[in-house]
Amino acid sequence: MNPTPEEYLERELPRFREELFDFLRIPSVSARREFSADVRRAATWIQDQLTAADLDSRILETDGHPVVWGEWRHPDPAAPTLLIYGHYDVQPPEPLEEWTSPPFEPEIRQGRIYARGVTDDKGQVFLHLKALETLLQTESELPLNVIVLLEGEEEVGSPNLLPLVEEHRQRLAADAVVISDSHMFAPGVPSLLFSLRGLSYFEVRFRGPAGDLHSGSYGGAVVNPANALARLLASLHDRQGRITLEGFYDDVAEWDPETREALRALPFDEDAFRKELQVDSLGGEEGFTTLERLWMRPTCDVNGFVSGYTGEGAKTVLPREARAKVSFRLVPDQDPQRVSRLFQEHVQARTPPGIHSEVEELHGGPPWRAEPRGPFFDAARQALEEGFGATPVLTGEGGSIPIVRGFEEILDVPVILLGFGLPGSNMHAPNEWFPESHVERGIQTLIHFYRKAGELAGGTSQSA
Amino acid sequence: MNPTPEEYLERELPRFREELFDFLRIPSVSARREFSADVRRAATWIQDQLTAADLDSRILETDGHPVVWGEWRHPDPAAPTLLIYGHYDVQPPEPLEEWTSPPFEPEIRQGRIYARGVTDDKGQVFLHLKALETLLQTESELPLNVIVLLEGEEEVGSPNLLPLVEEHRQRLAADAVVISDSHMFAPGVPSLLFSLRGLSYFEVRFRGPAGDLHSGSYGGAVVNPANALARLLASLHDRQGRITLEGFYDDVAEWDPETREALRALPFDEDAFRKELQVDSLGGEEGFTTLERLWMRPTCDVNGFVSGYTGEGAKTVLPREARAKVSFRLVPDQDPQRVSRLFQEHVQARTPPGIHSEVEELHGGPPWRAEPRGPFFDAARQALEEGFGATPVLTGEGGSIPIVRGFEEILDVPVILLGFGLPGSNMHAPNEWFPESHVERGIQTLIHFYRKAGELAGGTSQSA
Repeated sequence: MNPTPEEYLERELPRFREELFDFLRIPSVSARREFSADVRRAATWIQDQLTAADLDSRILETDGHPVVWGEWRHPDPAAPTLLIYGHYDVQPPEPLEEWTSPPFEPEIRQGRIYARGVTDDKGQVFLHLKALETLLQTESELPLNVIVLLEGEEEVGSPNLLPLVEEHRQRLAADAVVISDSHMFAPGVPSLLFSLRGLSYFEVRFRGPAGDLHSGSYGGAVVNPANALARLLASLHDRQGRITLEGFYDDVAEWDPETREALRALPFDEDAFRKELQVDSLGGEEGFTTLERLWMRPTCDVNGFVSGYTGEGAKTVLPREARAKVSFRLVPDQDPQRVSRLFQEHVQARTPPGIHSEVEELHGGPPWRAEPRGPFFDAARQALEEGFGATPVLTGEGGSIPIVRGFEEILDVPVILLGFGLPGSNMHAPNEWFPESHVERGIQTLIHFYRKAGELAGGTSQSA
Repeated sequence: MNPTPEEYLERELPRFREELFDFLRIPSVSARREFSADVRRAATWIQDQLTAADLDSRILETDGHPVVWGEWRHPDPAAPTLLIYGHYDVQPPEPLEEWTSPPFEPEIRQGRIYARGVTDDKGQVFLHLKALETLLQTESELPLNVIVLLEGEEEVGSPNLLPLVEEHRQRLAADAVVISDSHMFAPGVPSLLFSLRGLSYFEVRFRGPAGDLHSGSYGGAVVNPANALARLLASLHDRQGRITLEGFYDDVAEWDPETREALRALPFDEDAFRKELQVDSLGGEEGFTTLERLWMRPTCDVNGFVSGYTGEGAKTVLPREARAKVSFRLVPDQDPQRVSRLFQEHVQARTPPGIHSEVEELHGGPPWRAEPRGPFFDAARQALEEGFGATPVLTGEGGSIPIVRGFEEILDVPVILLGFGLPGSNMHAPNEWFPESHVERGIQTLIHFYRKAGELAGGTSQSA
């Protein structure tokens, strides 16, 4: 007799962990050309997993990194269809010296698996792969039609995904999209997302003299691009922490009092949040709470800057150039294209004589707000309750998953954001981690989710 | 019969050039520990040159890089004494990719010798070594007593030189110090310096959260050290280009109308200056000319900054730290210690809640103004006139040679700044160069200078 899915999962868990570690060891950094072969290796690794689990699978080439496609069709033509989206590429791991263990050598410490991509998003993609394998290897079928679509360019703005979704929109017809690329609200408090912020990300270059100059011989008479860029960056906020781009807040939607009330009722411990970050004080736009600042208000952060000499000791150089990465997080109903125009106008107006400025848009995506209802949403809620023994809360997320809006618009389906990471998991930072216990719980929850979605959205899993 | 110095110089010039290139090939970067052995190698190389030229020479150890000492005593006890000071260490060569030829592989292109340190200051130190050799090898004596004092820490603020001068003040007793570490006003326009700016150089660190954060998940609620540091840097100037440190201008001396008038009479081509730098506009403190801004007014430049992600593409990080190198050029009678205090107070007052700031003072030196008179000054003027066929002009210099004031104070002697570089020589920048023809002219001029100094300051060279 076949084992039950639960027995299979328990039995195979040690192997799953080995495989997860193998997956995490592949440095699939999409932003760097030198890792292209590794990105492809990660795609092939997933394809092999899908094939072994008994899905049809193939690699779709794009102008950039490939997309992995998996498919399992239920014999019942009335069965609902779930599209599982995720990404197998990861953020660059730098600064390397701040990792306790190397980013691509997974290590477990105090119940946490540390590795680049373990939360964002390879570890969470892996949960789906293993939930599918577990059901197919024990029950020989899934409770609904499943399409798996995993891209390798999410961390560089998914330039090739939406065209591919457009091209294959017939084949991708589905009743819902599920994405596991987010956090639970807190340990033991599972959550479902109702909003995501959008993104406009830029690189600004200020060029001054043709070459680096001696700051003694030239300082005071030559406009210094580093000083000038600092003034530009400082000009992006006013004293109330509001962003100064002209007309920036015109499209910021007011949230209804009920949602703001629900937000204030969440068990958020600001003091613990502050302590976890080891800062003596939080800050941001005046008149808003921390969760409102994170989920409902737009923001502008310098993500990096560099100019001149930054090594050991003193070098008296007047740098020829200064560069900064600057990004805006957007909220409904802001439009990244409009923000891009406003930013470029702002930079243009504040480039002093003696400086040549350039703005390059590197990444953009619209904000999103969900309708938290329907059978797939209900299935997710019930699955989380079973998997974690607690009623999930509704939360926002300050980050962006730009593809969410694309799926909604092209495929006209709801998107369910069902994440298993924990706050403080260091996504996009050194020492990214994922709770070890969430590997098993995540797979269990996803098995529940597929089953309940099959039941609630069509009930076909019972009749198959 | 011995050749004359002029004949010797002409004959040996090809060898001199080979030796200069050997000297320039030693990467004597004092700011970096990994070059310590090379810095010492440069010291030994000079010691060998001094010995070969017939000076007594030795290496003096310090807590840092060594000092090279050379000495030649005239038989006439009444002979005047000239102390030749210079430095054999060089600035770091970065950014390497901007050098047309490698920084430590000297190359001649269009009449210019390109190499790190060729102007600042190894090339100019070399002129003295060869002027001394030429006189000693042809006339078997020098026209005065000579002490050569060459340090290897000028580019890191000469931390060990003044204590050594203090310790050896009896032995270093001299009638004048000559330093060749500066520029002529223009090609064909030799000059003598009457002022140098001082320096206060700092590194500022702004620390925020304990680790890098995802700028989506945390942006808007966590104070971003890069944004905050940009605001600090922007706060250092007002709209008129004046420095905002409280009380910063209290000690800035007014220059007499005659000197300002003489400055305005110099053949300075602002348009050519602007074109050489390839900027469409110059800038600086309102109400002052370019040369006044460079020579008579203090300034504040960001020499470098770094934070977060600065590589290819987009990384949505909220950086945990931001750093900047910031330096002030000071004019008489500003005091670097007072400026250091004012800067630290300014930073302290402008560190926002949520940020921990640190200021490290990396380098400091007082400004200097010369008395342009006396026998050594007259000797220098006549020597330049003979060497370059043009009357030297009096100029200021925006850069700093912090040791100048130290010599004046400890040894109570005038300091003569007799430089052979040309404007635009890229000191402290990629593609540093020195005019090839100034090797011969520089040596000739120095031979004239030693002779005339011997005559005017004591006439002993005639009686020896």
